Amino acid sequence: MNRAEITEQISAARIARALTWQQLAEAIDKPVVWTISALQGQHPIPAEAGKVLVQLLGLDESAVPILAEVPMRGGSPAAVPTDPTIYRFHEALQVYGGAIKELIHEQFGDGIMSAINFSLEVQRKAHPEGDRVVVTFDGKFLPYAWTAADG
Amino acid sequence: MNRAEITEQISAARIARALTWQQLAEAIDKPVVWTISALQGQHPIPAEAGKVLVQLLGLDESAVPILAEVPMRGGSPAAVPTDPTIYRFHEALQVYGGAIKELIHEQFGDGIMSAINFSLEVQRKAHPEGDRVVVTFDGKFLPYAWTAADG
Amino acid sequence: MNRAEITEQISAARIARALTWQQLAEAIDKPVVWTISALQGQHPIPAEAGKVLVQLLGLDESAVPILAEVPMRGGSPAAVPTDPTIYRFHEALQVYGGAIKELIHEQFGDGIMSAINFSLEVQRKAHPEGDRVVVTFDGKFLPYAWTAADG
Amino acid sequence: MNRAEITEQISAARIARALTWQQLAEAIDKPVVWTISALQGQHPIPAEAGKVLVQLLGLDESAVPILAEVPMRGGSPAAVPTDPTIYRFHEALQVYGGAIKELIHEQFGDGIMSAINFSLEVQRKAHPEGDRVVVTFDGKFLPYAWTAADG
Amino acid sequence: MNRAEITEQISAARIARALTWQQLAEAIDKPVVWTISALQGQHPIPAEAGKVLVQLLGLDESAVPILAEVPMRGGSPAAVPTDPTIYRFHEALQVYGGAIKELIHEQFGDGIMSAINFSLEVQRKAHPEGDRVVVTFDGKFLPYAWTAADG
Amino acid sequence: MNRAEITEQISAARIARALTWQQLAEAIDKPVVWTISALQGQHPIPAEAGKVLVQLLGLDESAVPILAEVPMRGGSPAAVPTDPTIYRFHEALQVYGGAIKELIHEQFGDGIMSAINFSLEVQRKAHPEGDRVVVTFDGKFLPYAWTAADG
Amino acid sequence: MNRAEITEQISAARIARALTWQQLAEAIDKPVVWTISALQGQHPIPAEAGKVLVQLLGLDESAVPILAEVPMRGGSPAAVPTDPTIYRFHEALQVYGGAIKELIHEQFGDGIMSAINFSLEVQRKAHPEGDRVVVTFDGKFLPYAWTAADG
Amino acid sequence: MNRAEITEQISAARIARALTWQQLAEAIDKPVVWTISALQGQHPIPAEAGKVLVQLLGLDESAVPILAEVPMRGGSPAAVPTDPTIYRFHEALQVYGGAIKELIHEQFGDGIMSAINFSLEVQRKAHPEGDRVVVTFDGKFLPYAWTAADG
Amino acid sequence: MNRAEITEQISAARIARALTWQQLAEAIDKPVVWTISALQGQHPIPAEAGKVLVQLLGLDESAVPILAEVPMRGGSPAAVPTDPTIYRFHEALQVYGGAIKELIHEQFGDGIMSAINFSLEVQRKAHPEGDRVVVTFDGKFLPYAWTAADG
Amino acid sequence: MNRAEITEQISAARIARALTWQQLAEAIDKPVVWTISALQGQHPIPAEAGKVLVQLLGLDESAVPILAEVPMRGGSPAAVPTDPTIYRFHEALQVYGGAIKELIHEQFGDGIMSAINFSLEVQRKAHPEGDRVVVTFDGKFLPYAWTAADG
Repeated sequence: MNRAEITEQISAARIARALTWQQLAEAIDKPVVWTISALQGQHPIPAEAGKVLVQLLGLDESAVPILAEVPMRGGSPAAVPTDPTIYRFHEALQVYGGAIKELIHEQFGDGIMSAINFSLEVQRKAHPEGDRVVVTFDGKFLPYAWTAADG
Repeated sequence: MNRAEITEQISAARIARALTWQQLAEAIDKPVVWTISALQGQHPIPAEAGKVLVQLLGLDESAVPILAEVPMRGGSPAAVPTDPTIYRFHEALQVYGGAIKELIHEQFGDGIMSAINFSLEVQRKAHPEGDRVVVTFDGKFLPYAWTAADG
Repeated sequence: MNRAEITEQISAARIARALTWQQLAEAIDKPVVWTISALQGQHPIPAEAGKVLVQLLGLDESAVPILAEVPMRGGSPAAVPTDPTIYRFHEALQVYGGAIKELIHEQFGDGIMSAINFSLEVQRKAHPEGDRVVVTFDGKFLPYAWTAADG
Repeated sequence: MNRAEITEQISAARIARALTWQQLAEAIDKPVVWTISALQGQHPIPAEAGKVLVQLLGLDESAVPILAEVPMRGGSPAAVPTDPTIYRFHEALQVYGGAIKELIHEQFGDGIMSAINFSLEVQRKAHPEGDRVVVTFDGKFLPYAWTAADG
Repeated sequence: MNRAEITEQISAARIARALTWQQLAEAIDKPVVWTISALQGQHPIPAEAGKVLVQLLGLDESAVPILAEVPMRGGSPAAVPTDPTIYRFHEALQVYGGAIKELIHEQFGDGIMSAINFSLEVQRKAHPEGDRVVVTFDGKFLPYAWTAADG
Repeated sequence: MNRAEITEQISAARIARALTWQQLAEAIDKPVVWTISALQGQHPIPAEAGKVLVQLLGLDESAVPILAEVPMRGGSPAAVPTDPTIYRFHEALQVYGGAIKELIHEQFGDGIMSAINFSLEVQRKAHPEGDRVVVTFDGKFLPYAWTAADG
Repeated sequence: MNRAEITEQISAARIARALTWQQLAEAIDKPVVWTISALQGQHPIPAEAGKVLVQLLGLDESAVPILAEVPMRGGSPAAVPTDPTIYRFHEALQVYGGAIKELIHEQFGDGIMSAINFSLEVQRKAHPEGDRVVVTFDGKFLPYAWTAADG
Repeated sequence: MNRAEITEQISAARIARALTWQQLAEAIDKPVVWTISALQGQHPIPAEAGKVLVQLLGLDESAVPILAEVPMRGGSPAAVPTDPTIYRFHEALQVYGGAIKELIHEQFGDGIMSAINFSLEVQRKAHPEGDRVVVTFDGKFLPYAWTAADG
Repeated sequence: MNRAEITEQISAARIARALTWQQLAEAIDKPVVWTISALQGQHPIPAEAGKVLVQLLGLDESAVPILAEVPMRGGSPAAVPTDPTIYRFHEALQVYGGAIKELIHEQFGDGIMSAINFSLEVQRKAHPEGDRVVVTFDGKFLPYAWTAADG
Repeated sequence: MNRAEITEQISAARIARALTWQQLAEAIDKPVVWTISALQGQHPIPAEAGKVLVQLLGLDESAVPILAEVPMRGGSPAAVPTDPTIYRFHEALQVYGGAIKELIHEQFGDGIMSAINFSLEVQRKAHPEGDRVVVTFDGKFLPYAWTAADG
């Protein structure tokens, strides 16, 4: 049993047991985006949380140490995702990626938004012309710095 | 002279004249992300705004109607961008794209975040461990609906 | 059992039981194009319809909640489809895609045809030189709009 | 001067002279979708029509025989188009391409919709929830037939 | 059991039973190229022929209706085939494809050779310098025609 | 001036001077398919023929030795051609390539059709249901043989 | 059981039985490079040789006729191989491929080295600065010739 | 003027001046394969040799130091070359690459043939059934060794 | 059982038995980077070391000779890796690869860093602004040399 | 004049003026790897350094502000580099990338080596069996942390 097989089992068990992602997140007291991505095989899951999830989902206990390993991340969506819900974010990067880059440099100088010291939130916000999906990418600014260990 | 050539001229003129994107955005009273992406060839620029920009940047007046045409969008960053500042957003989608999809469906039902009725904001937020880049994707929720013109 | 495996079972069962797509669509009182794409794994199938279909096709009842989940869409035909029947539509987009874009902008302004608030119909129309396949793509016009949740 | 260069000149001249595609189509008495795609380099333009267009757009007369040649078609949009307006049609094929195929076979038998004996129309149709873009793909049904020239 | 699995079984059974393609074609009274491609999953096989083949090859009777369905065609050889015997045809198209196009247009006008109303023959012809493989692509000429169902 | 530039000039000059490929082929007494492909940069053109062509097309005499060099072949159509007239041949290989391979092996044994000792012909053949494009690929059979220079 | 599965079994059996490729080649009295490539699924193996190999390797007798079929060749290494030992040959073609082409044309005229009437040898040659891997590609020269079966 | 432009000039000048590669190689007293690949931009050319070549080919003296720089190698033929003369070597690697690897390991142990300490020769060898192209890849064997600078 | 299956078993067994890579490396007295890459299927593992590892990990003894074979290397990470931890090295090559090349040529002359006579080390070094990951690529310099076995 | 054109000019001027990278680095008192990559268009160059370089290389003063802008990074070497000197690093990542990942996680926990807070050094180290190229990747360890700007 490897991580990919466990991810597949989690997906099936969650539907069969009619558990929401929100319920799973609350059961381990973690943010819901983090919880979903971890259960999709994108983050290691600490053993205590792993035990709770494994029990809730009816998986074998032996999954716990595998869930606790740092996984090989990414790769699930293709370079160009085909699912419309995910594609819209890819499209937004195609249209606005260059502008984001310019504005980060204008506001912060040369550097990047970290995707490691990072969190992401999905919110539903009401609006007179229809509710809106508001997704926040929030990462520490890392300035380009030429630093060496010895010197 | 086509849109791509004008975009190239804008890029050179902005640096030569030491204009910030913020100044250009204020000159036409538009949001700065919109302004940058439009000047990068991603949006049509209404003639009045086009005239202001063309004068500020010292371009030929004949650029105005070309800037006002709806451009062929996207294509600037490759499917997998190589620039580190832009890549981090691609990486975040690789790691969290599946989670965003699940959460949109759990919170809103079947549908997508529109990338057309949409705005995007880049903010600098202070944080004790280092300032953060906060980028907000904000699009109208569009539910899957099987609708026909005649019926 | 995941959605892809159920899709495979549906395909085999439909042939073995000699059911037409039209019969399946009528059994759940849905448009036939929607029904086929849903049974090919492109749409969630509400539980009541799912129960009818599962019975008609002789599948296990446990498929019903999996069919009701929003699936990961797209991906079945490759970027360039190899099947001649599907390829002709790809070819038409290669030849006429630019014209469609120009005409949408000339008739509606800047924006897109929604593929979410959307329906598609396949019709057989008689013609003296041979019957014709008439496929209608029908989506709501969405104008580009820079809207934000908070003002 | 080759076809691609003339296409580029047409695009620039049309904007500079503020001519709509509709006006160009009417000037040569051809359907507007055909006219745009021909002017985008996708169809040969008969010499009489070519002369009218060349004059309207202020191009050199020597373009007429080049416009009258059968061009190398396709290739303008990439396999996966990046422009959102064009992408939505690609997406619709990803989601509904398999269903279109099944339905053509169920309604007509084994065969295809011709993309050669073919026309395409873009219409604006009013709808209480917002006007709709209705695009009709209309091609002759061609049944698979194993025919040889010599018997 | 799906079409791909049946194709695999046919391939194995034909070798195990030492049947030639020619024998299989004669058993169902069909052209040999058509028969091979159909048995490789590229054409539907009418039920009567399917029954004969299934018996000859020792397959399960339940394969008959699956063989009779219109299959998802193409896709077996990659865009650039690696097998030398097939590659030579790809190479010939690389070298002579443009010439074929020009000559079709010069001899017939604007249009294509149909690959649907089509047959293909492989012949062995004697020649003093060594026998030759002669492969004939024979398709109906289809002129580009802008025709619509409704007038 | 390199071969690609000369090819471009030939293409423009042929149209401007209203010369058919057939006329060019007759002027140098070569098969028309060979002539077109050579003028498209796929074959070296012997100096005597080169001189005739250069004069007919009004090119500079210095093109003659460049035309006489063995060119870098192929590459003009992409791996998957987008032009519909060329694509149909690619599609025929997708559908029938495997059958051609099997039949060559059944009729000749292990080996290939040479694409070097090779000729190709395009013919128009009358047929009651419409004229047909008949394209013949004719290459020497080359059996796989494990031969070494030194015994 | 198909050829790919037999290839996999051969690979495992050879290691388990500690047989060298040289021993297998000698057992069937064939050149060692030919033997390895045939056992890797790149050549048909005549039935007598097949029987010897099947016995030596402890495979099922039913593999013999499958090994005797002409296989679908190539495809094992990717377009750009990742294994360093194989990659060096790809690199040599990147650096010297153009030179080989020029020299073949200068020494032989227009044509190719056959990869069908062909043999390949790997030798170990001593050298004061370290032994050398010497790989010889040895193919019949095939001149471009425009030959047709019928005259 | 960069290396690519000089390579283009060399190619044109060599043809215009009717110089063979052999003559160029003799003029600088270097192996002919090395000379061609160097003149195709794959190796630095020492200044003395550069001066001779520049004079023979009638190039500007300023090319000498650019030719003497180590160039960015490779990239001229695509991953899968389309030219038939070059393709045959790619095909041979597809069919025999795995066998070469196995034999290097069986004869030498774990390691590679160097493509850096390397030479390549193209020879014409007579043979009763037709002359043969014999291409020798000759590289130093490099055994895998886990060595560190600091012990 | 092939090498890929054994690699998969090793990965699962190491986690289940809570063994660190460091412990496995020490058990066979090899550098830890070498040990991990070998256990990931990138190096042959000598039989003595193989026996120790197989016992520690609880694998079947029959894995030992398979582990001792030279494997097909590379291929595990894609051309562009998606895992962020691995991607940063790809990114560093994108940004600094050209500089490394220039500096090797400036310091050593024309040649390469061997990836075969090579070792790699990962170190943790303390730094006042946060510990650093220091990865050393250490390969023998190989100068380009045109050497032949016979002369 | 854009950054890419300036990069091209720098490359030509450096060779024409016979300046080493080391000299350029010393002139601006920066590390040599940083200097080369900056002059290859991978980093912004502060105006003071830019002025010195522009003068040393004989470029136009107007290049200074363009050099000072944050450039679009990466993209120079392809996903799989073809130059052998650069390729060896790609190969090392193919073979050892997975091991580096495992060891970073074992030594530091979940996280990455920063490629932003980063330096790289190329050293020549003597060794009895031949001098070695030692390239050090040195980046700050960044632990995965789920942090948000607002709490």
